[in-house]
Order: sequence, then structure tokens, then C-alpha cells
Amino acid sequence: MEKINIGQNVYLPMLVTLLGVNVENKANFMALGWISRLNASPPLLGAAINKYHYSAEGIRENETFSINIPSKELMKETDYCGLVSGRETDKSCLFNVFYGELETAPMIEQCPVCIECKLVDIYPLPSNDLIIGEIVATYTEKQYLINGVPDIRKIDPLFLTMPDNNYWTVGDNVGKAWEAGKDL
Amino acid sequence: MEKINIGQNVYLPMLVTLLGVNVENKANFMALGWISRLNASPPLLGAAINKYHYSAEGIRENETFSINIPSKELMKETDYCGLVSGRETDKSCLFNVFYGELETAPMIEQCPVCIECKLVDIYPLPSNDLIIGEIVATYTEKQYLINGVPDIRKIDPLFLTMPDNNYWTVGDNVGKAWEAGKDL
Repeated sequence: MEKINIGQNVYLPMLVTLLGVNVENKANFMALGWISRLNASPPLLGAAINKYHYSAEGIRENETFSINIPSKELMKETDYCGLVSGRETDKSCLFNVFYGELETAPMIEQCPVCIECKLVDIYPLPSNDLIIGEIVATYTEKQYLINGVPDIRKIDPLFLTMPDNNYWTVGDNVGKAWEAGKDL
Repeated sequence: MEKINIGQNVYLPMLVTLLGVNVENKANFMALGWISRLNASPPLLGAAINKYHYSAEGIRENETFSINIPSKELMKETDYCGLVSGRETDKSCLFNVFYGELETAPMIEQCPVCIECKLVDIYPLPSNDLIIGEIVATYTEKQYLINGVPDIRKIDPLFLTMPDNNYWTVGDNVGKAWEAGKDL
């Protein structure tokens, strides 16, 4: 079928996460979809956020942050974190907050997976900052593990598509990576 | 329930894409999961790949690349692209290849969405390069669109979890972003 060009501003389906940052000694959480692992060893990840986000101040202040993966059950709270800014609204009481070894990266007790990071670098982009962090610890619970590894069905995370702005769950297991292509 | 620390090397569930690059005037495709939008305007995205990948050479050579989203039906071919290196194996005949306005970013006709990018910068990480590109065009077909926007159910993409190395489909639509949290 004929290919058509739908322009430049296309989005990739993305995992929904919550970025946790202390700002002025108080926990704040923002919805974050622009995130990826960046490096294997050391384990680095990158989060792209608008320079003017309240969270950007806290990252510079403490040089620590967290990436929390909410389950479907936290959809309302997660969406709320994307609707209001911590500059005007105190989001610190929305969740039960805990801290890990870095002491200043707030994490969410209700999230199945919480990744604690220390800041490595900030790469400036035109309107965003790419926050590059090293993972120092990952907190979860036994109920989310299979063979010691977090299981996506137990985590039950959300994915976001834009610009239709829909939340999606994970579907079926359809194959094994680094195996499915061995026939070819 | 009690939180346990499962260490540093944790992965986020990721969209499965194919990175298209011309290397020595031939199309090559590698499986890529470490990718995210980075900036809204201009529309930038970032892909983190090992410095020693064959594709890294082609990106420096042409300063163009593509991000292709395969559907579930292309799982075997996609996985194969992650199993073998273009340095030893010619992957140019695995798909029907087409080129867009940049002329050197090979794209995959069989993929529902193909994003054509020009290189903006390479940010060096310890073992990876973060390839930062500006989206110049996005190619799709009418059959994948709803209201002019690519629909994730029609694209039917794959998600990858590591280290269990499973491929997953998209599940159910469970809510609207920037709306679900308005009650709170």
C-alpha cells in the first residue's frame, strides 16, 4: 500500500513512569514518558523533561531522582501527577513516600518497581533537559518477581500513546527475544 | 509488603524498533529498544546503541538514520536483526527497503511506521553512543491511521522485557491521559 508522510511530530508508544524528586525538601512526582536505558555498565538511564518543570529544580538541588513504575491501579494518581505542577500543588501526600540509600530521591511505596538514581549529567536540549542518571538501587516486592526478576504481568504497567492520549495495558506474551529469529 | 533491593541492572519494558542505517552504501537494520523522544520542538529523539555496532559506523558516515516500528507479524525478522551483525551478515534483503527525502536513511516497507531522522549530535556514554536525531518525516499507510493518527492497535507493535527476554503485545485501552486524574 502507498506510504504517506504524516510529518515530523510523531510519538513512540511509551512506558508510563513517575519521576520522583525532592524540591525544597519535599517530595514531588511528575508523569514521565520520555525515558530509556542509555548504557549497560555502568547502568545509566535518561529522562527528557522540560527545563521549566518544577522537578528540574530539585534535580539540580539534590543531584538525585527516582523512576517509579505505577501499575494500572494507580492510573488516576499517575495522570493527576501529569495534570498539576508541584509549583502550585503539593503532591507529597498523594502516595506513601520512602527513601533509599541516597536519602534524597523520594520513591513511591505503592509502585511495584522504584529505581533510585544519582545524577551523572544534564544534556541541554532546545526546550528539554536530558537528565542522565546512574541506577544505584531498585526496590520491589517479592510478589512482583518471577525467578528473582520483576514480571511485567505482575507489575501491570501502563503505556501511553500520543497525540490520541490513550493509556494501554500490556497484552500477550508472543515470543522470546534472541530466540524467535533463530529459524531465519 | 516489604521492599527488597534487587540491584542496579534493571530494565524498563521497552518498545521494539528497528534502527535503519546505510553502511558502506548498503541498508542495515538492528533491533533497538533503548529509544525515546527527547524534545518536543524541534522534534528530537535519542537512540542508545553500543559504540562498536556496525550501525554506529553508518550513522557517522551519512548522518542519517531511521526508526521503524515493526508489527507482531515481523517478530521473527525483527529478532533476527538483533541476533546477527551487519558486519558479517547482509540484512539488506530481509525487507523491502525504501528511502525518503534524506536519501540515505533506509526504511522498511513492511513496518507500519517509519521515522526518518537526520543526525543532530552524538553524546558519548561509557559503552554506548546516544544518537540524537531530528525527525524530518514519518511514513505510514492509511490503513494504520484513525483520525489521521497512527493507532497502536493497528500498528500492533512489540514490547520487550529484560532479562526474561519476552516479547509482548499491547493490551487493552484503559483510560485517557490528561483526563483520568481530573477527579482527584
